[in-house]
Amino acid sequence: MPEFRQNPITGRWVIVASERAKRPGDFKPEPAQPEKPGEPDPFAEGAEQLTSGELFAFRRKGTKKDGPGWYVRVVPNRFPILTPDEPFNERKEDGPLFRKQSGFGRHEVVISVWHNTPIVLMNEKQSDMVVQALMQRHYTHRHDPHIKYALIFLNFGKGGGASISHPHNQILAMPSVTKEIASEVAGSKRYADRTGHCIYCDIIAEERRRKIRVVYENREFLVFSPFYARFPFELRIVPKKHQTYFDEMNKAQRLGFGDALKAAWGKTWNTLGDPPINYIIHTAPVDHGTYKHYHWHVAFFPRLSIPAGVEIGSGAYVNSTPPEIAAEYLRKAPRVPRKKK
Amino acid sequence: MPEFRQNPITGRWVIVASERAKRPGDFKPEPAQPEKPGEPDPFAEGAEQLTSGELFAFRRKGTKKDGPGWYVRVVPNRFPILTPDEPFNERKEDGPLFRKQSGFGRHEVVISVWHNTPIVLMNEKQSDMVVQALMQRHYTHRHDPHIKYALIFLNFGKGGGASISHPHNQILAMPSVTKEIASEVAGSKRYADRTGHCIYCDIIAEERRRKIRVVYENREFLVFSPFYARFPFELRIVPKKHQTYFDEMNKAQRLGFGDALKAAWGKTWNTLGDPPINYIIHTAPVDHGTYKHYHWHVAFFPRLSIPAGVEIGSGAYVNSTPPEIAAEYLRKAPRVPRKKK
Repeated sequence: MPEFRQNPITGRWVIVASERAKRPGDFKPEPAQPEKPGEPDPFAEGAEQLTSGELFAFRRKGTKKDGPGWYVRVVPNRFPILTPDEPFNERKEDGPLFRKQSGFGRHEVVISVWHNTPIVLMNEKQSDMVVQALMQRHYTHRHDPHIKYALIFLNFGKGGGASISHPHNQILAMPSVTKEIASEVAGSKRYADRTGHCIYCDIIAEERRRKIRVVYENREFLVFSPFYARFPFELRIVPKKHQTYFDEMNKAQRLGFGDALKAAWGKTWNTLGDPPINYIIHTAPVDHGTYKHYHWHVAFFPRLSIPAGVEIGSGAYVNSTPPEIAAEYLRKAPRVPRKKK
Repeated sequence: MPEFRQNPITGRWVIVASERAKRPGDFKPEPAQPEKPGEPDPFAEGAEQLTSGELFAFRRKGTKKDGPGWYVRVVPNRFPILTPDEPFNERKEDGPLFRKQSGFGRHEVVISVWHNTPIVLMNEKQSDMVVQALMQRHYTHRHDPHIKYALIFLNFGKGGGASISHPHNQILAMPSVTKEIASEVAGSKRYADRTGHCIYCDIIAEERRRKIRVVYENREFLVFSPFYARFPFELRIVPKKHQTYFDEMNKAQRLGFGDALKAAWGKTWNTLGDPPINYIIHTAPVDHGTYKHYHWHVAFFPRLSIPAGVEIGSGAYVNSTPPEIAAEYLRKAPRVPRKKK
């Protein structure tokens, strides 16, 4: 039977439409790799001339910036959504109906040299370099007075919005905090003001007690499908210890995060057959507000359905797979990705 | 150069990312028809046993409910997102973190008998029957005390979220007004309170004066690409006369609406090669609030890009085609769809 479920942080409702209930076999995910026949890989070693302006890298000793010899590199996106070439927050009002603001910001891609290797297929050393690069860039944006939010995300596969098949994380450093992000932060604040607790800490405790939505756990991180999941097989990856910013992880947490992220992805891969993936790191704004109440976390989801009339028209997501059912499948699935047939 | 643009009604920002500027030829839309090889068409004449419970129809004289002889039928969705079998607004609280509400509502499909004929390919008589059926159902939901909002939308083509290739409009009659819809209504109200004007009436006047975003116009309707378009080639179809509810159109308006909708779709088809389509009718809530300030309209857009990390993570849409450029292409395009090759 369908039901509305409320996200207690943002107050948004999701419709869990069980009449449409879907098991893993009912989804036919689009192939994860976008097709780009004949085009050279702009993120390959040796193609550094296509991605100059290296911002950070792990490289072999003695190798040079913007040359070969790297493991993980952070470079500006060649087709940036926002750019530092634009002036910071320049308003261009043209009457109350036509308000513009300059598209200042920074758009970066985090690439790794291992061919055809999304993070789920990396060993611990490799994935830890990627996590460290993301943390390092987040830390840099956090101390840039013009950046108010650094959005870290992965678009993997054509259905996940990727236009380049070489897997890459992206960072969009923005000059303001969007309404959606502000609403999540405000929701956590309201809960903390009312109860004296962090809402994510309380959710973690409840989910561990109830177990039905838990998918995986290590010393540092909990992976579960949230009660208010918007997408089939959506997950949260959350540090068990209260922590405001993604870039604050110590080494044990970093390794635990890499392990949890790979477990989430591997179990999803095995349950659904290497579907397209998005993940988004939800961390506190970096606009020098006080966000001690905020608990960073990751939203992780395969792209199995297309948001359409209902979602775009009403803002309510329709999820055809109750998170308790999704969690049951994912919990049982092995975490090491099976080779593709 | 990229820029932020504000939707003056909801206050949301869109990023127009001109670095990624896309011309029509840069998009390779997915085929509009979802593939369902071998499956019988559940919306064909003669298959009425698959869609019983007819709620409204235009039919030949002497033919019977739920039998053949119809032109346009409204029937319950077989896989409803919300259903009248659930109790109305039953709260199932399980602590503050797990709030549920019963999935009461009505989910209907509006089907027409003409094979493989989306509204853009219909003649005036045919499309007017569809529009009348939608108006009639909206009017019915408006007078149902359990329904607070009737969302009317089209998902056309696989990329538009359709799972059945026979084109069909859908109506989701909901027991509450979602946050997103409430925010649009509240934004119009704020503008009206401040200026004494309807914001849509003011936008229409400005767009007609500026001309750069206008795509088509008839006596009753204006078609333009909004300044704050979220999607490449997104359009608005708006009645020129202030009107609160979609179901209030008189005959001249109804015919004008059909004409404008077909012009919008035909021009989009010719510019982009029959892409998947969504449209959503934005009309006032039917919860007996006072909405005289609200001006109903249609959001119409081809599905050319996949909302991914940025959109889902920040709520800000990235539009790679400035609406002024989209409007220029659409304005020039003929309105009668070219046959597919």
